[in-house]
Amino acid sequence: MSAPLTIVARIEARLEDVQRVKAELISLIEPTRAEQGCIQYDLHQDNQTPQVFVFYENWESRELWLRHMESEHLKRYSVAIEGAVASFTVNEMNCVR
Amino acid sequence: MSAPLTIVARIEARLEDVQRVKAELISLIEPTRAEQGCIQYDLHQDNQTPQVFVFYENWESRELWLRHMESEHLKRYSVAIEGAVASFTVNEMNCVR
Repeated sequence: MSAPLTIVARIEARLEDVQRVKAELISLIEPTRAEQGCIQYDLHQDNQTPQVFVFYENWESRELWLRHMESEHLKRYSVAIEGAVASFTVNEMNCVR
Repeated sequence: MSAPLTIVARIEARLEDVQRVKAELISLIEPTRAEQGCIQYDLHQDNQTPQVFVFYENWESRELWLRHMESEHLKRYSVAIEGAVASFTVNEMNCVR
């Protein structure tokens, strides 16, 4: 029921919007880390293809991650990056070890 | 020169080989965590598509990660999973925050 959840979220920005998307992703970190159930929320940028970002996230439960997905800061982000993201994938995972 | 490095390695097993690949991936954990420069080496399996695995790795430097890529256990793994992996991608990343 309330097993921990790992999220690997991959965001690929449009080449002309990398800095704008990066700033918006950074703006998510502080309010998300303050959310209930957030254990880890680390943003990474690819060294070879800087338009590729990955959030590595650990949550106490899927329920609390779903609550995060409905948060005001994520809604604000979605509006702010409209048209600037080429692709977005999210994997819901469990930590094997 | 010796900046820390994050690796996001995505391994997709062939459907008929998921358990075999998983066992081989697990066998990498202990010897890799014992390697010089390894800060974190966590294996994850996708909840919706269990043939998808992700290693989330943090290394003290790219040099020490490259040494890991030449390790005996990784060579043994490469032989063991031959023909059982549908796709493999690795992203070299830096932690923004």
